[in-house]
Amino acid sequence: MKRTHTNGELRLSNVNEQVTLIGWVAKRRNFGALVFIDLRDRSGITQLVFNEELAKQISDVRNEYILQVSGIVVERKDKNPKLATGDIEIQVEEVTIVNKAETTPIIVADETDALEDTRLKYRYLDLRRSPIQKNLMLRHQVTMITRNFLSDHGFLEIETPILCKSTPEGARDYLVPSRVSPGEFYALPQSPQIYKQLLMVGGLEKYFQIARCFRDEDLRADRQPEFTQIDIEMSFIEEEDIWNITEELMRKIFKEIKHVDLPEFVRIPYDECMERFGSDKPDMRFGMELCNVNDIFANTTFKIFADVLENKGVIQAMVVKGGADKFSRKDLDKLQEFVKVYGAKALAYLKLANGEFSGSVAKVVSDEEKAVLKAQLGLEDNDLLFMVAAKKKVAQTSLGALRNKLGHDLNLIDESKFAFLWVTNFPMFEYVEEEDRYVAAHHPFTCPNLEDVDKLMSDPANCYSRAYDLVLNGYELLSGSIRIHDQELQKKVFEAIGMSLEEAYNKFGFFIDAFKYGTPPHGGVGIGLERLVMILAGTDNIRDVVAFPKTASASDLMSEAPSPVYDEQLKELHIGITHPVKEH
Amino acid sequence: MKRTHTNGELRLSNVNEQVTLIGWVAKRRNFGALVFIDLRDRSGITQLVFNEELAKQISDVRNEYILQVSGIVVERKDKNPKLATGDIEIQVEEVTIVNKAETTPIIVADETDALEDTRLKYRYLDLRRSPIQKNLMLRHQVTMITRNFLSDHGFLEIETPILCKSTPEGARDYLVPSRVSPGEFYALPQSPQIYKQLLMVGGLEKYFQIARCFRDEDLRADRQPEFTQIDIEMSFIEEEDIWNITEELMRKIFKEIKHVDLPEFVRIPYDECMERFGSDKPDMRFGMELCNVNDIFANTTFKIFADVLENKGVIQAMVVKGGADKFSRKDLDKLQEFVKVYGAKALAYLKLANGEFSGSVAKVVSDEEKAVLKAQLGLEDNDLLFMVAAKKKVAQTSLGALRNKLGHDLNLIDESKFAFLWVTNFPMFEYVEEEDRYVAAHHPFTCPNLEDVDKLMSDPANCYSRAYDLVLNGYELLSGSIRIHDQELQKKVFEAIGMSLEEAYNKFGFFIDAFKYGTPPHGGVGIGLERLVMILAGTDNIRDVVAFPKTASASDLMSEAPSPVYDEQLKELHIGITHPVKEH
Repeated sequence: MKRTHTNGELRLSNVNEQVTLIGWVAKRRNFGALVFIDLRDRSGITQLVFNEELAKQISDVRNEYILQVSGIVVERKDKNPKLATGDIEIQVEEVTIVNKAETTPIIVADETDALEDTRLKYRYLDLRRSPIQKNLMLRHQVTMITRNFLSDHGFLEIETPILCKSTPEGARDYLVPSRVSPGEFYALPQSPQIYKQLLMVGGLEKYFQIARCFRDEDLRADRQPEFTQIDIEMSFIEEEDIWNITEELMRKIFKEIKHVDLPEFVRIPYDECMERFGSDKPDMRFGMELCNVNDIFANTTFKIFADVLENKGVIQAMVVKGGADKFSRKDLDKLQEFVKVYGAKALAYLKLANGEFSGSVAKVVSDEEKAVLKAQLGLEDNDLLFMVAAKKKVAQTSLGALRNKLGHDLNLIDESKFAFLWVTNFPMFEYVEEEDRYVAAHHPFTCPNLEDVDKLMSDPANCYSRAYDLVLNGYELLSGSIRIHDQELQKKVFEAIGMSLEEAYNKFGFFIDAFKYGTPPHGGVGIGLERLVMILAGTDNIRDVVAFPKTASASDLMSEAPSPVYDEQLKELHIGITHPVKEH
Repeated sequence: MKRTHTNGELRLSNVNEQVTLIGWVAKRRNFGALVFIDLRDRSGITQLVFNEELAKQISDVRNEYILQVSGIVVERKDKNPKLATGDIEIQVEEVTIVNKAETTPIIVADETDALEDTRLKYRYLDLRRSPIQKNLMLRHQVTMITRNFLSDHGFLEIETPILCKSTPEGARDYLVPSRVSPGEFYALPQSPQIYKQLLMVGGLEKYFQIARCFRDEDLRADRQPEFTQIDIEMSFIEEEDIWNITEELMRKIFKEIKHVDLPEFVRIPYDECMERFGSDKPDMRFGMELCNVNDIFANTTFKIFADVLENKGVIQAMVVKGGADKFSRKDLDKLQEFVKVYGAKALAYLKLANGEFSGSVAKVVSDEEKAVLKAQLGLEDNDLLFMVAAKKKVAQTSLGALRNKLGHDLNLIDESKFAFLWVTNFPMFEYVEEEDRYVAAHHPFTCPNLEDVDKLMSDPANCYSRAYDLVLNGYELLSGSIRIHDQELQKKVFEAIGMSLEEAYNKFGFFIDAFKYGTPPHGGVGIGLERLVMILAGTDNIRDVVAFPKTASASDLMSEAPSPVYDEQLKELHIGITHPVKEH
């Protein structure tokens, strides 16, 4: 007999119906001669009642056995308001044991205290837990909404290869030895960047793909060696077109899943963003902005500040409203240590209490400077002022990190908010101190701002690009750019990052060639799917939104991948191992 | 100024409108002082007319330049009924050259005589050709319909890993060396088989994925090293459930794309299918069935037939209605050669003309046998009868191949038909002569028919399984099965294929372990997406439905993948090349 209902479905209105259910035993309780069982499936839990006679048939049944039962829906006396089906139970009339289960190494319940490694080893059991199933359903919902939205807007989903050419740039490639071409390798794509641009060259105009990407990096907590990107590219467009379609997509997702109408998406150029928030992905759910107070200290007699200013550094300030009495001396010492991690030498602070300034720099800041600080920063009684004097980037990022930390510590963040921010006008290049050269900040196909084209060689530090990020609640949700569609400009950019045309041709000659034949202006974005689902699910663990995740050392604890392989396999692939194999 | 319309959009109803178009120059004709240009984008072509003044501005413009034009829609005098926009043209008032193009190495037109290798090398230009773009749009449409259909039926799309454990079984794995675990490797999945079954163990109940799969095989024309599968798995089901959902999906796809209502899906068990069609993927768009005529020749005096029957072989027959005068002696000799490829020693034939039999075995077949043949096979004047006497498999497959060939040669196939066929009850095992052992015909997780469980060891040749294929127009569109969900049965099957429990544990111990904890009955299918799109697109070249395909030697002629990599990359991966690198 087939199941008539799922275990999340029955309500008071079903009372007296004859039903057949199937599922896993989530809980078993004996109550006198009766047995109560919570039967679980993907949709929820239903309580079953077995009379004395039937109870005998299931005397061996314990958690995670699979049962099929038929019976009558009856109203419960002791209703369970926490359960969607809590008003009813099933008076079982017939039971079949569909499959048995040994005692599970982790308990299948919403809450778990199992170590994450154990959960990952037995992921197939962990997957039975409702919070993980809900995340996977959410992920499915997000991709369905995304696909339908983009398809309705004329985008075609086009699959690009996983077996690609290695073009090491940025992260390390995962390589795949070729059996047919000895000594040659494929690479797994870090993103479909080159292919999606070639689709634009190919006249497809509007492309998307929910695409698997691979990066062989030393993983941080929120990274996986393989991850998924909502990849979008459009032709004949400008920034506004891409931002609009992205915003519309986000509105749609957040409306359908979170039932919220998103407010306007803020747009701030990179330089301003760094100055005001000390980060290119600031959390906009709270204020506490930074500001530059160089002018106030232009004539300072405080040697440390004066030296910094003389060396073209900056003094960056941040006011903690009403914060003067929230930090003990010990707390402040800890914050000193905190900013040092970001390269700051010290964290200066001033407290304003009863109209008087105290704090680490109270004696070296002049009365006049104090007055201006008070006026310009709007300092009020009981406010706390932090300052970092350092090179611009250090001053900004250390104070930005402190802003984030205090935002959390002082509960300034409205967790119900979704604060989107476009960061625009990124620098075109990034200076790599160790190599004494500029590299592409985004990737080498990013279009520079037209007014900066002439400065590409002469003043790379002041070249800005048509690259943008979308930030949500302090996470970089996506990045993208308008691409170069002019061959001559592309050559100039290669030159500016010190890549010879020969080297460029070696790496992606076919790509450069493609641009000869009528390339449309184009651009796009890549949205981190896991990141988006994490935020929607309210988790900060990427493994909670991946069905079969890997650990920080890129291993799958369940299947034990990676693993040794047969010599025969390696021989066929014309490779050998050059490092002693680990013992197993 | 933004484009107001696409190039496939304008009609007579738009006459007198001011429009802005953008696209590629598909054709340029000078006509006196005027210039006519066909402007192309993804949606189609629109004819532009440039007056003498404007013609000067575009004197250098040739094919594949990108133009943006503004102008007035006017009615054409010489309408082009082949073009959707053929009733109108644009009287251009303003033109901008958006990008230039060098002369393209292949001509961008619907019809091409370029070699396929050239087309693949310049795939980004080949992609501009409307037939390829249409195929990619079709592919997008098929995946959108599939996803929405399955999602609406409660299936969740869940992404499974690409970096997997190597479990060589069937085809060769593509391997990926691990940097973090020296001497260890990931494998790219040949299919998500193990993961989708673990999702069922994990209680997800209804899973699907449009999943990339990888097989490192020597490629045939219709294979690619990476391909895509519509992968489906369900719990708590039987064959009928899977067949029904699959049929419904196919009906939906063919209705939306081909506007046809599919007829009933035929179901034939494997043995019967082989006997009637000599193939497990017969083309059902035409008849010309095979039959076994052993009984008729039970007392034959023809030594060759008698020997075959004595050695438990079969005599398989096929009637070509009205075929007696369609084959010359030379044709028939060629058909002899044809069946020999499939192992048959000879192709016997009889022609019936004016009530008289002639042909290769006319003299050795008795009058009585002829009479029975005539009666039982319904032979009429001018019919042609082919017979192959051989081992069962050889007789069936050689005549089955001949059936296919003649179906095409004699134009018996109604190309407008879509003939679906479920082939069911596949043999559980396949005997591998070289290894003198039985292997799993499908994969080792396929459930045997319950009535055959006791014969697994004693009579493997006569064990059948709950595996099934769906065949469409002679192509295997999908295969699937009900899986084993009982640990003890799984162990028996491993034993039957001579896999020790130790070996099985080594390969997929985690998978066997998973089945201890309450595994639901489950099963599913994997549908070849490219195959499906090929049939819908009416092409027999898989590369026509893949955006960036690889050649038969698994290389990408455009990017030149696979390619040599830097020594540094190999060193980091703890591998070396054991075979001299090809010169480049």
